[in-house]
Amino acid sequence: MNREIQLVQRPEGTPNHDHLKVMNTNIPEPQQGELLLKTLYVSVDPYMRGRMNEGKSYIPPFQLNEAISGGAVAQVTESNSPEFEKGDIVTGSLDWKEYSTVKAESVRKVDPSLGPVTTSLGILGMPGLTAYFGLTDIGQPKEGETLVVSGAAGAVGSAVVQIGKIYGCRVVGIAGTDEKTSYLKEELGVDVAIDYKKENVKEALEAACPNGVDVYFDNVGGSISDALYPLLNKFARIIQCGAISSYNTPNDQGPRIHMHLIKASALVKGFTVGDYQDRFKEGFDHLSSWLKDGKLTYEETIQEGFEQIPDAFFGLFKGENLGKQLVKVADPE
Amino acid sequence: MNREIQLVQRPEGTPNHDHLKVMNTNIPEPQQGELLLKTLYVSVDPYMRGRMNEGKSYIPPFQLNEAISGGAVAQVTESNSPEFEKGDIVTGSLDWKEYSTVKAESVRKVDPSLGPVTTSLGILGMPGLTAYFGLTDIGQPKEGETLVVSGAAGAVGSAVVQIGKIYGCRVVGIAGTDEKTSYLKEELGVDVAIDYKKENVKEALEAACPNGVDVYFDNVGGSISDALYPLLNKFARIIQCGAISSYNTPNDQGPRIHMHLIKASALVKGFTVGDYQDRFKEGFDHLSSWLKDGKLTYEETIQEGFEQIPDAFFGLFKGENLGKQLVKVADPE
Repeated sequence: MNREIQLVQRPEGTPNHDHLKVMNTNIPEPQQGELLLKTLYVSVDPYMRGRMNEGKSYIPPFQLNEAISGGAVAQVTESNSPEFEKGDIVTGSLDWKEYSTVKAESVRKVDPSLGPVTTSLGILGMPGLTAYFGLTDIGQPKEGETLVVSGAAGAVGSAVVQIGKIYGCRVVGIAGTDEKTSYLKEELGVDVAIDYKKENVKEALEAACPNGVDVYFDNVGGSISDALYPLLNKFARIIQCGAISSYNTPNDQGPRIHMHLIKASALVKGFTVGDYQDRFKEGFDHLSSWLKDGKLTYEETIQEGFEQIPDAFFGLFKGENLGKQLVKVADPE
Repeated sequence: MNREIQLVQRPEGTPNHDHLKVMNTNIPEPQQGELLLKTLYVSVDPYMRGRMNEGKSYIPPFQLNEAISGGAVAQVTESNSPEFEKGDIVTGSLDWKEYSTVKAESVRKVDPSLGPVTTSLGILGMPGLTAYFGLTDIGQPKEGETLVVSGAAGAVGSAVVQIGKIYGCRVVGIAGTDEKTSYLKEELGVDVAIDYKKENVKEALEAACPNGVDVYFDNVGGSISDALYPLLNKFARIIQCGAISSYNTPNDQGPRIHMHLIKASALVKGFTVGDYQDRFKEGFDHLSSWLKDGKLTYEETIQEGFEQIPDAFFGLFKGENLGKQLVKVADPE
């Protein structure tokens, strides 16, 4: 017996259990060159909300009545490939299934000497690489500059604030609970942490950025960004990594930003981590070396049980996660 | 007797005669190192609207009850500098006065062999340089790419569309009268001209850009840009040169653009021509060589009479000008 989680209805606004259903299914036989994988950990990520909509984006939409897919860690339980052995721990984009068959070339082995296997879904995986390339390539942070990060306690944001400190920036992190702002200050060493749910964000940003904002790593968009734009310094760089505040309200309106960009000769650049595919090794090497040297730390929020995947995903939009949100599906054998 | 035009009240919305007044004043004596200038042509430009507001921007605001200043062409009527002779034609930023005294180093001589002296305020001046640096440096246009230009029949836009053709782009120009769209098609050789006042801009853009939009040179912002953003191709570049639709409505709201930028990994860059000050010679050399070779043409809309300056300025926001809007104040002696 196998289980999978299907998209059974496209959400219009906030996704809920009407849209994602756990279904029983069979365990398929792996063919030549294929692996049978047992899912251990599943990553839930805000970008997945976009794939639940119809229509073209940078990746194709999820299909109705098919399994959702995304980053996962799994163990090889049967291998028809000379590259893998039973028991290997692998990562890649997998269907939300307890057991999957995949072509061997679609996954890669996880090196357990670099850290717990879950780091391949977080600090040493897509979120870490997103933080690294967005901040260093688009943001071009310089020593002494002010970096503001929205969604600062999430998987990407928590890496960004630390890389910002490595580059010598004054770092201001914005998050939405006491636990998160304490984490930012006490564990990650940000200079100022702002609780956007408790504080007047405009006033708090003005106080936190007396010399203006040089780099803004934006995971959130919406009213937090509205408050930030007037503070941009000349030649400021804005990394438009995400806009989670808009994912469930696609026709969201707000103040136009043209004039702020002209006044500051500022740059805004959208991106997805895949844009840097040919530089992944560089990013991975930096991240793993910082991690080893203790310059980077990370946090994980892990729910347990395959059937918890939908709730863990819904929780992203309520800001429930500190660091990387994962679901543990099974123990390795 | 001398006359000047003062900002007597800061406009909240659209500027009118309540805000700008013609005042009588004296002709000052030029001191050592100074010139007495007779104004011949005054440039009116949309960016001046921003300087009528209070508060910091990329240039300081105009002061209340003082003369407005901006690009102008003048003739030296008295020189206390060895660098200039009576009769020389010069250009620089001058007060809106019939006669001005200035430090000699604040103006430069116009080379009449390059074209009529008015070109120093248009195609060989600030608007031409704005077009050149915005399009080539931020836009990075490549042969066969689709370039869309808003405000395409204005001083900057009409240069952008032609430079786009020199670079081998498919060029779509957006403007607001039959005269302007005819000019774009018949004189400037754009591939498609869209009349945003007559056509449904979204449908017209979709039809004009079957392969999407690679470069968007935006002078206008607002609903024209709203219609364009969904058409952005992967790695599109948006040159945020102006946003004339917002200048008189500073609290303008509209659809948020974050998601379009992320989906397309697109870049938006605000700028002002002063950002390229150390490359002005390069820009000027390209523009004057294209002009000489007949690869660039230009249009001017010239009102006559010093007291017409305010109306010529107000007319910019009604889209009255084809090409560069100037006011002729006097004939040279």
